[in-house]
Parts: sequence; C-alpha cells; structure tokens
Amino acid sequence: MARNQPVAADANAPPITRILAKFVANHPSRGWSDAVDHEAHRTFLNWVGCAVGAARHESAVAALGAVRMLQPPAQSSILGRSDRVDMASAALVNGITSHTFDFDDTHLKTVIHPAGPVASGLLALAEVTGASGRELIDALVLGVDVECRIGNMMYPDHYDRGWHITGSTGTLGGAAACARLLKLDEQHTAWALGIAASQPIGMREQFGTMTKPFHPGGAARAGLMSALLAKNGFTASPKAIEAPRGYAQVVSTKCDWNEITDALGQRFEISFNTYKPFACGIVIHPAIDAASQLRARGVKAEDVERVELKVHPLVLELTGKKEPQDGLHGKFSVYHGFALGLLFGRAGETEYTDEIVRREDVVVLRRKVVATPDESIREASADVTVILGNGRKEHVFVEHAIGSLEKPMSDADLEGKFHGLADPVIGKAKADALIAACWKIGGAKDVRALCEGARP
Amino acid sequence: MARNQPVAADANAPPITRILAKFVANHPSRGWSDAVDHEAHRTFLNWVGCAVGAARHESAVAALGAVRMLQPPAQSSILGRSDRVDMASAALVNGITSHTFDFDDTHLKTVIHPAGPVASGLLALAEVTGASGRELIDALVLGVDVECRIGNMMYPDHYDRGWHITGSTGTLGGAAACARLLKLDEQHTAWALGIAASQPIGMREQFGTMTKPFHPGGAARAGLMSALLAKNGFTASPKAIEAPRGYAQVVSTKCDWNEITDALGQRFEISFNTYKPFACGIVIHPAIDAASQLRARGVKAEDVERVELKVHPLVLELTGKKEPQDGLHGKFSVYHGFALGLLFGRAGETEYTDEIVRREDVVVLRRKVVATPDESIREASADVTVILGNGRKEHVFVEHAIGSLEKPMSDADLEGKFHGLADPVIGKAKADALIAACWKIGGAKDVRALCEGARP
Repeated sequence: MARNQPVAADANAPPITRILAKFVANHPSRGWSDAVDHEAHRTFLNWVGCAVGAARHESAVAALGAVRMLQPPAQSSILGRSDRVDMASAALVNGITSHTFDFDDTHLKTVIHPAGPVASGLLALAEVTGASGRELIDALVLGVDVECRIGNMMYPDHYDRGWHITGSTGTLGGAAACARLLKLDEQHTAWALGIAASQPIGMREQFGTMTKPFHPGGAARAGLMSALLAKNGFTASPKAIEAPRGYAQVVSTKCDWNEITDALGQRFEISFNTYKPFACGIVIHPAIDAASQLRARGVKAEDVERVELKVHPLVLELTGKKEPQDGLHGKFSVYHGFALGLLFGRAGETEYTDEIVRREDVVVLRRKVVATPDESIREASADVTVILGNGRKEHVFVEHAIGSLEKPMSDADLEGKFHGLADPVIGKAKADALIAACWKIGGAKDVRALCEGARP
Repeated sequence: MARNQPVAADANAPPITRILAKFVANHPSRGWSDAVDHEAHRTFLNWVGCAVGAARHESAVAALGAVRMLQPPAQSSILGRSDRVDMASAALVNGITSHTFDFDDTHLKTVIHPAGPVASGLLALAEVTGASGRELIDALVLGVDVECRIGNMMYPDHYDRGWHITGSTGTLGGAAACARLLKLDEQHTAWALGIAASQPIGMREQFGTMTKPFHPGGAARAGLMSALLAKNGFTASPKAIEAPRGYAQVVSTKCDWNEITDALGQRFEISFNTYKPFACGIVIHPAIDAASQLRARGVKAEDVERVELKVHPLVLELTGKKEPQDGLHGKFSVYHGFALGLLFGRAGETEYTDEIVRREDVVVLRRKVVATPDESIREASADVTVILGNGRKEHVFVEHAIGSLEKPMSDADLEGKFHGLADPVIGKAKADALIAACWKIGGAKDVRALCEGARP
C-alpha cells in the first residue's frame, strides 16, 4: 500500500522465469553433444582443484570459524579438509575456496566465473541426497546455462554498474542446478528461481578482500537454500526475473531477453568456459605463455641478456609493477610473470609466494625484461624477443595465450594445474585418484567416494 | 583484471562504513533518552507478537521444512513453536513470520519495517551467547538506526527502482546489531557491515508471495552471518557502503550521505517507528478508526441505515473491493474494514478470515457503506457520517488514524494487538506472561526465559 510510482520499465518482457523453469525441469539428461558433456567434466575437475588448493587459506579458516558457530551436523564435505558441515555451509565454504586464488574458470563473454556458484551447492546437496554423478553433471550444465544466459542478457551494463556478476547471476544458476538435482517440477523450479532472484550478491568494490570469493560462496548457498525452500512449497512471483520490479530490471539497464531464449537447449554456455593456466591477471598470460614456449625451445635464464617485450598499453597500466615485493604484488607484475614462465614453465599459486618473488634468480631475470607499450599489439597477445649472451635472438609472438577460447588448455594441462593446486594439500597420490574420479564422475553411482577422496 | 569502465559515480563520499562502524562499536549502552528506550521495548514487543502470531502459517511451515533439511542443532527458538534450530535458521524463520501478516512496524519516512531484519538475528544470537536483555535492546536501537539511516540516504529512488527496502537495508541493520551484540571492535564491525553490504535482498515484484516476508528473514540471516564471519576475521572493503562500486551507488541513484551523519548518536530513528493496529493496508486505517470511534460512542450496526464515507481517491483505487470473497480480498476492501471497526472495534488478523468476510451481519453492514472519492481529504484521513434508523446522524472526522506517528498506539493498544496475534497460538495466560517479559527485557539477565515463554 506504499507509494506506487511508475518505473521506466519494460512491462512486455517474455515470461523468462517460466521459460527457464521449464527448460531446467524438463530438458533430457545428457541432452547435448559429447563435447558439451566433456566440457562439463573439465569445468567440474578444474573447480575441485581450485577448491582443494585453497582449503587451508585464511579465508577458508575464517569462514569455517563462522560456520562452526552454527554447530553444523556432518552432512557435506569441505574439499581439501576433513571437516564436514551442513550442506548450506559446505556450499558457502567450497564456493569461497574455489574462487580464493582467482584461479578458477571464466565465461569470457560475461566475465562470470561459472562453476563456483553452481557446483558448490550441487556437490554439497548431492552428498546428502545420494544423487548420481550423471545427475550432478546434468544439473551443472543446466545451472551454468541459466547463470551465463542471464549474464549475457545484462552484460556489460550490469557489470559496469558495479555488480560482481559471478555472485549476482550465480544465485540463479545455483538455484536452477539444485532444483534440477532435487527433481523439482516446473512450478517448483520457477519458485526456486524466483526466491533466488531476490538475492543477487556482490559489489565490485569488494575486489581485493575476502568478500570477493564470498560472492560465489554466498550465491551457492542462496541458490541451494532457494531450491530447498521451493521444494517445501515456499512461493515466489512467477515473473520474478522479468517483471518491471523484478530482478533483471532492478539490477540492470540492459535486459536483452532474447539472450535467454535464443537456441535454448541447443547452444550450451558451458561450451564457452575457459580455465586460467596462470594464477594472475589474464592480461599477463600471453607474456607467461611466450616465456614458457621459449623455455620449451631450450632457452635458459642464465643465457638471457635482455628481453624485449611488446604488449598493449593496458597490460603495463594494470600489471606494470617492476619490483614486486611479495606474492600478491607479483600478480601485478608482467615482468615477474615472464620470469616465472622462463624459469619454471608455469605460474601457479605456488609460484606466487613471497619467497619466490624475492628469489635471486627470479629478481635478476625479471630486471632484464624491457617492456614497451605498443598499440598495435592486442590485449590478448604478446611479442617477445630474447637476446642471448651469444648474440643469438629468439622471437615468439603469442596471438592467443594458452587458456583462451582459441587455444584452450588440454586435459593434460588441466591435470597439471590440478596437481599444482592439490598436491600441497592432499599429496600427489590422492590428487591423481581425485583427478581420475572427476573425469569419471558422470558415470559414478554417487558423489560420496569423490568427496572422501578430497580429504587430506 | 576485467574491463574497467568508469561509472558515473561519486568518488568523494565520506567514509560512511567507518563512521557507522565506530558508532555501532562505541556508542554507550543506553546512550539515549528514556523515550527512545521505551520505543525500543515497544518495537521489540510488537515484533514478538507478530512472529508468534504467524508461527503456524504455511510460510513458516515451508521455511522450517527447508531448514530441517540442514539437520540443525537446537540452538535458538522459533517464536510461537516448540522448534529450535541453528541460530542462522532461527533468524530466517522468525524474520519471515514477523512479516508474514504484513502487520509489523513501519518507519514511515522510508516504508522500512525495521524490527524484522534486526530483532530476528539478535534474539537468535542472544539465545546462544547468553547476552543480557540490556545488550539486546542496545543492539536493537543501533541496528535500527543504521538500517533506517541507510534507508533515509536512498529513499525514494532506491525503493522506486524496485528494491524492497526492508530487505535491502535490513542486512546492514542486522549486521550492525549482531556485531554490537558480539562486542566486535570498530574494525571487525566495519567488516561485518562490509560483508552485509554485498547482500541486499528483495525485489518488490515479490509482493503477494511468500518471498516478500522472506526478505526480512533473509536479511536477518545475512546480517547475523556477516557478523559471525567478521568476528572470525573475514575481511571486506573498508568503503563497502560508499565507494563508487560499493553498495549505495550500485543500488541507488540517490545517495544523501548527510542522512548517515546528521545528528548521529543524538537522533535515533527508532523514535519514528509506528505499529499497525489493523491487519490491512495503511490507507484503510482511518476508516476503521472512525468506525471504532462510532462504536465507542454506542452506535450499533443494526441501527445503521447508511454510511457516507469520504476518502482520498487513492483509497478507493487501492482498496475499493465492494464484495470481497475471502480473507485476503477483505484486506483490499475499505467497505469491509469499516464494517469490522463498527462490529468488532478491531481489525486484526483474526477478523480477516474467510468466515468473517462472508458472515451475514458483516456483509449486510458493508453494503450500507457509500464511499465517495474526495480530493480535499488527505490519504491519512477519513470523513464519516452514519445515518441511523431514527434519522439521527453521527459524524466523525479522523485526521490521523490510530497507529500513525501523530496518534500512536498506546502501550495498552499494543498489548491488545499482541493478544489478538498470540492468544490463538500460545493461549492468553502465556501471552500475558510474554508481554510482561517483553516490557522487562531491558533488565533481564538473558533472553532465554522469554524464548521459552513463547512456546505453545
């Protein structure tokens, strides 16, 4: 009965909430190509590796401390730890850890990190319900599709406005996935989406704090709880997403409804998921890739006299730190990134420690890098010439770095990344077994053995 | 490292997050007038009554069904039920029930319903920590102040845009209150506010569904969890509320920073809280009040020939249903409202049942009401002339209805309302004891006896 001013809004939106609910509830199991299904497994494996890798991080410890105050029952596992907590809290914590290193996956068109908000609720729920691995993968594909299509609908306006799009679309993706896993019908799925639509999470101002990874964690928990509420008959508006005072029009000035409906059930957004090979900003990746290629050709750090690195000006603007002092600084140094690539052939979380940033050979090598901004080089590219002691030159041009959509990480690359994350937490042998379990999850009777295998 | 477009935003906001954190952490216990402290007790009592009253509603049952799936420990009470669940879930469910009848409290300047998001987390937390009643009331005053000042800062733009302002500001009020109850210092309180700032809840499209009362419930849970996370060292941006890509500028085009700082610690927004006497839209209240006054003068329904009711046109636009068919319809009928006032002298939730809406004497009386729209009458007023069988006329003009800021409900009125809500759930004797416990809560050793007293 409060004031009822008109909003400048589209009252003629198509029934998005109902369309998505129908899709999520009714699309057939494995109703997509083998390539899509394989990408779902890659998405899952990469997510597990990231979560295990950050399981001992102080964010995880702080979040678990809060969760422990709820005296949670041992329902669902925290990946990479022996802790088990209630499923909503497990969704929260695994969502946090999987994004803690900013090293997870990216749907480049929207900069959404798709897996965290979707997989975190799903695995926690599947561990309780005993759902099959097939059901988990089906729900993952559909949840990521809902999340990224909603992102496509609103990006870039929604993101530019200040929303951390991973958390603000992730509640809907998580709700869709958990509704599917619970086998909710169309009506109950619509309620789950509707309840989630009232809970967008995340402002970009939080970048650089623990609340950034809280966003996918909070979204995972909200999505799971929305599905549980709907299952129990809790109602929401049937137009919660699209109505003039519904989710989309409240949080975005751009609402391209056709992004929801175009080729729905035919084109799956998980196909466009990418995985970071290096634990730093994406603009440094071409330089690290170039250095790794030089290393593979036999170039040795001790033979290097000078490195001529040509990159887009934005690269130096964002990551131009010449003398990084610690691990976090290192992530903002293209110089350090190049040194890592040549010295280690990799740049995972373990290469961004304070110790390595300060190591003599690393410091010496990165000081030999002369970086030049060059408008003719694209942001996704790098042009590197190494001048060696014997006067010889080696040149590499990286058009698209490893990990891009054009040059995706191979399955073996993903496994290498997984080991870099998981070995320090659960050891190499367990990591091997866990990798194998991830690849086979689509055929697994349930997810419980996999969860057990992620304990240290 | 994603695109970094500028936003049209105010980079020169004062440090709101820090200012509020300092205020919440350091303002002295009972650092306000007796009138403010009494209003806090009225706010608390009214909130308990609303929550107890809706304890058996289907929304409560559905929400509890979801919560039960988390196998919660018996930490905190659900008011009006014998259930006990983890404190975060108790905050959720009590927040839902207290707003289920739309019969709680209103900060008229912002249309925020202040108690739900703040008291629900507080009571659940206090039950676990053993906090004193004084600490609870202190935290309630401060939490409501944060919530309503943030509302003042953004209203009406934020509300007009489509946010259900109770949920979207309530997370911050709830976080502030719980941080205070946990005795967090300034830094940790700032983190609690910061984590909450990433979680605004609620779209107005949900009005008319269970997700509307979910908003204060979800806000209460988010506020409590934000405080627990902060206590455990989980960090957030120190400018989470005011930064260009922080909470306020993302969810509102109006950001009057001075609403936060003006007379902070001197003027308390809880002073401006109001309580609905009637379980229907606020625009019907003057007509019901007029009818109640006529009843008090001895006017009897059977003597009435005709009722001439003059009201602002908006009243008929919003509540012009002449022949309501059920309890919910009845809430949108000023005709029915008048009949209730004259026949019962009250219009609580129990007068809005299907049975009473269809009762013969009620139907007969409301058909005698002739309502005329009149631009000269304000929305808050009603002009009523009753023509009786003997030709006599009785006239009442209600400028401000009972329950408005100008004519607040007395403590006795609040008790009467409480009984109307609580008696059907816990019985009159227990309701009497619970009322007494609410009035005395500021001096209570802890809140546990009160929680026990709210069980059926």
